[in-house]
Amino acid sequence: MRIVLDAMGSDTCPDPEVEASIEAARLFGEEIILVGPENQLKSLLKAQGGDNSLVRVVNAPDIISMEDKGLKLALKAKRKGSQTSMAIGMDLVKNGEADAFVTAGNTGGALATAFYRLGTISGVERPALTGLFPVKGGQCVVADIGANPECKPINLLQFAIMGSVYAEKVRGVHQPRVGLVSNGEEAGKGNQLVKETYPLLATSGLNFIGNVEGKELFGGEADVVVTDGFTGNVLLKSSEAVAKLITDILKQELSSSLRTKVGALLAKPAFAEIRRMMDPGEIGAAPMLGINGLIFVGHGRSDARALVSAVRTARQAIEADLLMAIQSAIQERLSQTRIQEVT
Amino acid sequence: MRIVLDAMGSDTCPDPEVEASIEAARLFGEEIILVGPENQLKSLLKAQGGDNSLVRVVNAPDIISMEDKGLKLALKAKRKGSQTSMAIGMDLVKNGEADAFVTAGNTGGALATAFYRLGTISGVERPALTGLFPVKGGQCVVADIGANPECKPINLLQFAIMGSVYAEKVRGVHQPRVGLVSNGEEAGKGNQLVKETYPLLATSGLNFIGNVEGKELFGGEADVVVTDGFTGNVLLKSSEAVAKLITDILKQELSSSLRTKVGALLAKPAFAEIRRMMDPGEIGAAPMLGINGLIFVGHGRSDARALVSAVRTARQAIEADLLMAIQSAIQERLSQTRIQEVT
Repeated sequence: MRIVLDAMGSDTCPDPEVEASIEAARLFGEEIILVGPENQLKSLLKAQGGDNSLVRVVNAPDIISMEDKGLKLALKAKRKGSQTSMAIGMDLVKNGEADAFVTAGNTGGALATAFYRLGTISGVERPALTGLFPVKGGQCVVADIGANPECKPINLLQFAIMGSVYAEKVRGVHQPRVGLVSNGEEAGKGNQLVKETYPLLATSGLNFIGNVEGKELFGGEADVVVTDGFTGNVLLKSSEAVAKLITDILKQELSSSLRTKVGALLAKPAFAEIRRMMDPGEIGAAPMLGINGLIFVGHGRSDARALVSAVRTARQAIEADLLMAIQSAIQERLSQTRIQEVT
Repeated sequence: MRIVLDAMGSDTCPDPEVEASIEAARLFGEEIILVGPENQLKSLLKAQGGDNSLVRVVNAPDIISMEDKGLKLALKAKRKGSQTSMAIGMDLVKNGEADAFVTAGNTGGALATAFYRLGTISGVERPALTGLFPVKGGQCVVADIGANPECKPINLLQFAIMGSVYAEKVRGVHQPRVGLVSNGEEAGKGNQLVKETYPLLATSGLNFIGNVEGKELFGGEADVVVTDGFTGNVLLKSSEAVAKLITDILKQELSSSLRTKVGALLAKPAFAEIRRMMDPGEIGAAPMLGINGLIFVGHGRSDARALVSAVRTARQAIEADLLMAIQSAIQERLSQTRIQEVT
């Protein structure tokens, strides 16, 4: 198994990536391919006493930064000779020299690079960005969180099929419960897209639990939740912002007097669970579903521990042959649709 | 000034409504018209020692409950002889016998009743449900939070005009900052609706600050935020669910050991701000913008204090002649559009 780690992804790269590559190679006994500026990475590896036999450096002098967007980003993603760590890293996957690619970098850049260089799985109209949302009692796979601001019902059905396979094969959830984000739990509620998607999901053979609102999503009642990329992105960003607002106010108020400071010190263990839920290290990384290759994107705030956890997820996906499982599920669905069209 | 209070709105009605009617009449010196089952309300008023000179009871034997939906709800809302507290209460506003109507009941029921009985302001295509979101340093007016799952750009422009007038006249915000919910702050980001709405807002003469994400919304960077009713509803429900998840976990963890219990006791003052933010009593009620009458809807969880606060908001709206101000702003915009069409 060979896993590529983008050395130039996280907010404080490449230090956490270098540390994570050594740790992951040691922990999993797999080859980790660190892609980025060769000289810098090699000297960092040496300084950290890395075991070169399992960490291999592949040179990539260019990067996609958070500032890259529009045409510039598209060119960096698409160009044949692109020297970015994402382009070179994903080309390794494309050419069969590696089994998966992990990055904590610019999500839009990773999506564009993956889309242009690896393409989509046969039969998949649009790839989805997925997010792992911390919910009561665990996590929920949400797709799409931003790749496709406009979606058709068939896209959401495919996100549901792919999300289910992912939840089952990689996250070990038996018969994942699939929900459809709507403005009301009742069937019949929703905008046009939701109303047209509902019957597709209801007859899909998936474990469809119907429309879900925030209550069901964050209450842990679904394992996979699908929505268009516009709504999913608003959902993601607003959830993060609400969590930040509450914890910021709490921090501020807890440090406002001696009494509350002492209280906070005593109550400290109680805050650990909240911190754990909001910790990128617990989430690891989420897959780009529908891309013809295993691509995982972690949070920009990832530290070495979070990156090791991201590599672990990628490893589980390789082990479960996630790509093949998704390809089969999509093909099966396509042939069912053809049978329905014939009969 | 005469303000109608729906006695059959809140989750624990009519006790909080009866208490609030007495308190509001006393506090504001205005006539409060309590609408609901006459005998029950009169005996409750008597038991609470209410001053009948300022609290008047108008009989309404029927109610719209949380279970009413679909055709049944539509009939209760529309029928000429409808005896629900909402229908009778809003008819009082329509016939000029009252200046505003306040309810903590079924939002969909209130919207349908208002739409059928009062209609919309001339020139307004669709009314909006508004929510007051607790954000850093205050509150943000969000419209639409659920009346219109599908919107056109002109609808969002009108929500922005009406929301601005409301923020300025009733909430006392000078030149309210107006944001457009999108999946990215940059201009050009968004789904089709957002992309088409952006230029309308940019040339509207409103204080448009561009696209906003959760960060800007909950960071308190906008006073009014517009979106379609589907996205707005998802935003509302998910924010509430995240806040509930965090506070539930915190409560549970704080009571998990003696040490954390003592800590929680000492830190108690620090939790007050969070509780205050999530308290319906702080929010009061939000207006239905675009309805041809002053209709305010509060949270179902409202207690007497929250209802008094809702009546206060209604009173401020009457005082500021909100309806007339919105009518003027819409007319002004319509004539500007006509001028643009001519030139």
